[in-house]
Amino acid sequence: MNTIIQYQQLIDEAFKNKNYGTNPKELYEPIEYIMSLGGKRLRPLLVFLGCDFFGGDTAKAIHPALAVELFHNFTLVHDDIMDKAPLRRNQITVHEKWSDSTAILSGDAMIVRAYQELCKSDKEALPQLLDIFSDTAIKVCEGQQFDMNFEKLQKVSIAQYLKMIELKTAVLLGASLKMGAVAAGADKAHAALLYDFGRHIGMAFQLQDDLLDVYADTAKFGKQKGGDIVANKKTYLLLKAIEMAESSRYIKEELHQWINAPHFEVKEKVEAVTGIYNFLQLPDLTRIEIKKHYDAALKSLKEIPADETKKHSLTIFTDSLMGREL
Amino acid sequence: MNTIIQYQQLIDEAFKNKNYGTNPKELYEPIEYIMSLGGKRLRPLLVFLGCDFFGGDTAKAIHPALAVELFHNFTLVHDDIMDKAPLRRNQITVHEKWSDSTAILSGDAMIVRAYQELCKSDKEALPQLLDIFSDTAIKVCEGQQFDMNFEKLQKVSIAQYLKMIELKTAVLLGASLKMGAVAAGADKAHAALLYDFGRHIGMAFQLQDDLLDVYADTAKFGKQKGGDIVANKKTYLLLKAIEMAESSRYIKEELHQWINAPHFEVKEKVEAVTGIYNFLQLPDLTRIEIKKHYDAALKSLKEIPADETKKHSLTIFTDSLMGREL
Repeated sequence: MNTIIQYQQLIDEAFKNKNYGTNPKELYEPIEYIMSLGGKRLRPLLVFLGCDFFGGDTAKAIHPALAVELFHNFTLVHDDIMDKAPLRRNQITVHEKWSDSTAILSGDAMIVRAYQELCKSDKEALPQLLDIFSDTAIKVCEGQQFDMNFEKLQKVSIAQYLKMIELKTAVLLGASLKMGAVAAGADKAHAALLYDFGRHIGMAFQLQDDLLDVYADTAKFGKQKGGDIVANKKTYLLLKAIEMAESSRYIKEELHQWINAPHFEVKEKVEAVTGIYNFLQLPDLTRIEIKKHYDAALKSLKEIPADETKKHSLTIFTDSLMGREL
Repeated sequence: MNTIIQYQQLIDEAFKNKNYGTNPKELYEPIEYIMSLGGKRLRPLLVFLGCDFFGGDTAKAIHPALAVELFHNFTLVHDDIMDKAPLRRNQITVHEKWSDSTAILSGDAMIVRAYQELCKSDKEALPQLLDIFSDTAIKVCEGQQFDMNFEKLQKVSIAQYLKMIELKTAVLLGASLKMGAVAAGADKAHAALLYDFGRHIGMAFQLQDDLLDVYADTAKFGKQKGGDIVANKKTYLLLKAIEMAESSRYIKEELHQWINAPHFEVKEKVEAVTGIYNFLQLPDLTRIEIKKHYDAALKSLKEIPADETKKHSLTIFTDSLMGREL
């Protein structure tokens, strides 16, 4: 087994040495660019951890790991066009730096490169890896579509929201672990349990992200506090607040006044909406939902008949990832 | 062996019964829509013909055939966004009917569905099919990028143009035949020869398209004559004319006057530029280039040690496709 840092070095090294293509440069430079912006490289790391969990050789996980990261970055490039996002990882987005057309086409080449990378995997594991990969890719597209739909909807239920973040974010984390497991030759049922572990951790992770946007120590979190509130982003907290406000005319009016305000002081809106969230006990309610998924993750992990120290290492990593204080 | 019509029925039937997904409908309706617009279904037909050429069972070709058509339609959906095309197959394009975001995301789901379809192919052939498929997909992206680059370039050489149409159009025709061949278990060298046959036919086909835009009987061709001339589209004819005009100041001036004219009578421009093309003997020169590729295609076909009647059937089909009068 390697340490997390060794895996990260391995991933960084592999991407540094990767040649996506050269001609036409207009197609390949944006790929070099987005892949060089780094990021946490969480998904390839999970592939390695999934493989190691079942005693697989690191070498068996490398191609699925790189494929998953390429795929993830492909979704970022295309999502950023759809979301008209100016920045990604604090750098200018591909469609802003070049053009929408460039971002579409370079993204297309990236998903093909992801499949090519995946196809270098061991022959025995490949059919199953391809199955998981494509199935997950479709789910991520569905999640992004639901997310876009939500922007136009007046009413989004908590159940719809949870389904959306599951598809858009959580399944790829589960799939990353599962692909590592499959690469290691794990039993199907055990690989499925590791998938569920990752999926629930992904849910907890996303919900915590919603919570941190409002309540994080800004210096630690590295984002402007309350950005979701300013943008009326339909997070777990806002949707839950809207749902709960149904039974209080006063809260409902105040909340909707802030949501619909065409002009406002940013600080004032953030404070007022945070006040409503506090009043509704949303930090605690969100933590309960996070804990539900965290516990479900641990339950799945427990059911896998594997080495306890391996399980412990995995939870130490996922806990550190979440910086959890439940 | 089936007849062309039987293969076409098989393809139509398969697409009619296909379920791309249902929820969210915003993701899947555009896929249903573009796939229902039909088109010639040329590429899946070539997969079947490639398979039959080497005596393969029709059943072996069905998944690669559908995959190739899905991929082709994916490229149309994304290319139409980049080209801001209002119509496709005489119907409103996906990005116009819905939005750019919808067209990007539905397209993304389509290429994943294409890979899923391909992965249903026979296990022995699958690794090679995936290789050909991804390699071709990358080439098609490169071709589209070159095509977009050309719009902004003052000078495009004939060699650059031929390379572009090879990547954007011809390789997918070659790959379709080759995938059929591989599905049938053909020898690698023979499959490669069939690929070259298809690639050269594709080149001839695209060059003929350029020629027909100016010289076709409008009623037969179904497009407005001279559309490429009106739009200053960098076709083989225009690029060749620009190249040849270098040695005649008079022709050069007249041609560039029409290219750069901000306002013009459509009919007058088409007639004038056609006049220049005629003067430069471009119909004959283009036919020579077409024949070069056609002959190269036949040469490749000849080298394959296969049944002469099979070869004859294939050329009858490709000839009919080109409506050739060389």
